[in-house]
Amino acid sequence: MTRTQLTTLDEVQLLDTTLRDGEQMPGVSLTPAEKVDIARELDAAGMHLIEAGSACTSEGEREAIRRVADEGLDATVTSFARGVKADIDHALDCGVDGINLVVPASDKHVETKVGSTRDDVVETTVELVEYATDHGLWVEVLGEDGSRADLDYLERLLGAGLDAGADRICYCDTVGAADPERTAAVVSRLADRGPTSLHTHDDLGFGVANVHAGLKAGADTVHGTVMGVGERAGNVALEEVAIALDQSYDIDTVELERLYRLCRTVSEATGVALPPNKAVCGANAFAHESGIHTDGTLKDGTMYEPYPPETVGRERRLVLGKHAGRAGVKAALAEHDVAVDNDELSEVVGRVKELGDRGKRVTDADLLAITEDVQGRERDRHVELVDLSATSGGNLPTASVRLRIGDNERVASGTGSGPVDAGLEAVRAALAGDSAGEGVSFELDSYHVDAITGGTDAVVTVEVDLSRGDRSVSVSATDADITRASVVAMVDGLDRLLSAAAKDGSVPDVASLADD
Amino acid sequence: MTRTQLTTLDEVQLLDTTLRDGEQMPGVSLTPAEKVDIARELDAAGMHLIEAGSACTSEGEREAIRRVADEGLDATVTSFARGVKADIDHALDCGVDGINLVVPASDKHVETKVGSTRDDVVETTVELVEYATDHGLWVEVLGEDGSRADLDYLERLLGAGLDAGADRICYCDTVGAADPERTAAVVSRLADRGPTSLHTHDDLGFGVANVHAGLKAGADTVHGTVMGVGERAGNVALEEVAIALDQSYDIDTVELERLYRLCRTVSEATGVALPPNKAVCGANAFAHESGIHTDGTLKDGTMYEPYPPETVGRERRLVLGKHAGRAGVKAALAEHDVAVDNDELSEVVGRVKELGDRGKRVTDADLLAITEDVQGRERDRHVELVDLSATSGGNLPTASVRLRIGDNERVASGTGSGPVDAGLEAVRAALAGDSAGEGVSFELDSYHVDAITGGTDAVVTVEVDLSRGDRSVSVSATDADITRASVVAMVDGLDRLLSAAAKDGSVPDVASLADD
Repeated sequence: MTRTQLTTLDEVQLLDTTLRDGEQMPGVSLTPAEKVDIARELDAAGMHLIEAGSACTSEGEREAIRRVADEGLDATVTSFARGVKADIDHALDCGVDGINLVVPASDKHVETKVGSTRDDVVETTVELVEYATDHGLWVEVLGEDGSRADLDYLERLLGAGLDAGADRICYCDTVGAADPERTAAVVSRLADRGPTSLHTHDDLGFGVANVHAGLKAGADTVHGTVMGVGERAGNVALEEVAIALDQSYDIDTVELERLYRLCRTVSEATGVALPPNKAVCGANAFAHESGIHTDGTLKDGTMYEPYPPETVGRERRLVLGKHAGRAGVKAALAEHDVAVDNDELSEVVGRVKELGDRGKRVTDADLLAITEDVQGRERDRHVELVDLSATSGGNLPTASVRLRIGDNERVASGTGSGPVDAGLEAVRAALAGDSAGEGVSFELDSYHVDAITGGTDAVVTVEVDLSRGDRSVSVSATDADITRASVVAMVDGLDRLLSAAAKDGSVPDVASLADD
Repeated sequence: MTRTQLTTLDEVQLLDTTLRDGEQMPGVSLTPAEKVDIARELDAAGMHLIEAGSACTSEGEREAIRRVADEGLDATVTSFARGVKADIDHALDCGVDGINLVVPASDKHVETKVGSTRDDVVETTVELVEYATDHGLWVEVLGEDGSRADLDYLERLLGAGLDAGADRICYCDTVGAADPERTAAVVSRLADRGPTSLHTHDDLGFGVANVHAGLKAGADTVHGTVMGVGERAGNVALEEVAIALDQSYDIDTVELERLYRLCRTVSEATGVALPPNKAVCGANAFAHESGIHTDGTLKDGTMYEPYPPETVGRERRLVLGKHAGRAGVKAALAEHDVAVDNDELSEVVGRVKELGDRGKRVTDADLLAITEDVQGRERDRHVELVDLSATSGGNLPTASVRLRIGDNERVASGTGSGPVDAGLEAVRAALAGDSAGEGVSFELDSYHVDAITGGTDAVVTVEVDLSRGDRSVSVSATDADITRASVVAMVDGLDRLLSAAAKDGSVPDVASLADD
């Protein structure tokens, strides 16, 4: 595709408001330390402006903003300020470089919310801009609910801010109500007056479309948040804006290869999960399951991807399920050093699809078990769970396991922060070395349980990734008892790792780990 | 805002491909029964076309498509078919009304993927369209990877399909690589040839923007999925398309008030969680936390919302946290019949913010505890957890609790499907009626644990909603031991319900529930 021109700019500035608008998301709250971590990541990615918070919120918030401002970042660090002098004083107190001064613009906000008049708001705005610039602050004036404001008034209000010395103005689609036509109409008027930013929300799904329309109409800076966290449907997601501007229009914003890392940092700090189906950061953004997609992708990586995953710091992933095809299954088996002939492959593909038809995810362990069955191979289980018991609720969660290891059994116990953690310790203890053998160690690379919703008797699926040295394996187990599902998954995964090691001849001497 | 005109159409048709493209999302697999449930909901919402699956996938898939086709829905039910005769035969075998015939359009797909030539693909397409229409099928021809195809060839290919009798053609941005300018350029050419659908993906965040551009360029039908489930970053979300077309352009699509219900149905069946910050369906789409937003919303519901939540079958929600303001806290207390004076309110707001500053969500129970403390009220705890023990991992998860009830203690045990479920049963048993009293019953309306990621020692926050009669309360508890967090939350919630009942004079005789 030939690239079209969206704006005459080679670079568009991004203002990240994850730490302010993002944090206003219900249920999200960041500690000062978390804010500093995120700000560092934003700065490392080359974000131009970072709105660190709203200084009027609380003393804790001011502490957080102060710490971000003191980091010595390359980015311009700002605080949100309402149209009152006290907010600017709070911002000054935090040592920020500038403020995002928000004044009401629509009549609904001017009259109903703050009980003022258009003229009074203009007058106050001019005074506050002068006050802030007199104190050395960089100032952006935002007309709140600007997309629903009378356009003549909005231009007068923000124009007055520029005339009073503000560095830039911002078109705010505060409630995400505007369409691209409205955005273009408003922004083209504002951009004639001075440097104009865009602040869009996604309530109608037009977050990115309005950024597109606004840049075309003359804006030069985009507000947004990582992952689109924010009030209601959220702000426009900056990682989407960055990749879209790069791929479609060759416009620079931030370091693209840091985008995924940034999303993970924000997800961990806010507790907002990365949605699987989300551009750039979703678990599936570069994953392929269906037969034709996997087949095509194995032939040519660009077949079903708009750009290489490495662009945003990620890797491609092939996943098996009911839409699996021959090429994908063969590639997955090769990763586990398992060769199959054509007939066997057909049978394995059929069985993988059957499992998928029943609504199950197909893990490495599932694929290997199916293949062994198809090939009539008897696999020696190296480790098997015979008994499990866990106590919890009190001060010292404890678990015990009886494992069959080769021809022997071994019993061990462990304590942990909860029943699952105690179960993991018991398994580790059962496999630890003693005078009779060297022991088997393994890493639990990830432990994941989907959100549990519904009743306390909901069936829980636990997914674990285990590794030993270079080998890793994914396993899942499902049970209404989270303790049992977790330990079963761990032991099954461990068994798979030992089977693989046995093939290499590198199997540890587990049989010697006899019961005491 | 005045509505602008996007197209001359009053209504745009939607084709839902949740059951096909949506199900190709890695990790998602639907049983035939789940497909039928979703299809019924789609039909009840007035979806025009439903792509029920891909008949070539597996026998289970054909069974599912057959069942959807046999439902007697108003919607046109179709199957996906690749450009091979066997796929059309499979579709015919399922009794669908029509097919979405996908043929390669870009050279990458024509040459590298299927190893064919442009001319051969045109020839095959014509033959297949004739074969399908001869068998009474409605036919839409999709040019796969059309957004990256040579436009002259794409027009020739899809035009040949129309000439051979196809009902419509479809612009496919298969890999989500197109920008609005490219979409407009391609669609305007195709729409000149015949009725044109849009199939867009969200890899660059342009899913909705490209629908907007495509409709403006002459398309009349939009493909998409509920919640945007689908390969990689997903398809365009139909609930966003529907609300945007209604709100911005007064264009009809489906019954808007069924959208939220539809999203919940798909979320439950696919296991894909509703992201909190997503238009229409997100938990926060109509929730307000920050002080100025809550204050404004209490004054006028439309202050911070683009349209009323009832439009899509939802309700507004106010949430407390570090951005809480006076108006929001006062409203929340009023819901629990608690009155505060101005000074007390200031103090409560300050303490709520402090709790928020520490990164905590503020539940009903947190708010009430703070208020009691501020008002110097000693609250008699009606029920308190003294001891808890749970065993799990084996065949019969069991828990026991010792509760202080009034001045007495009572011990009880219960079994369940896991340690948490057993704990709930033990609490119920401890409060059950016996010869000494009537007992206390309660409903566990919801039990929620966020996805657990990281290690087995991750701290888990359990949120429960409990109710007795008309009263309900939300409580959360955090612990590395999921059993303990769950039971503590339940007992604390129960205690809150009993305190509220005591105020009404409707408290049950819990004190008489003495220990045996």
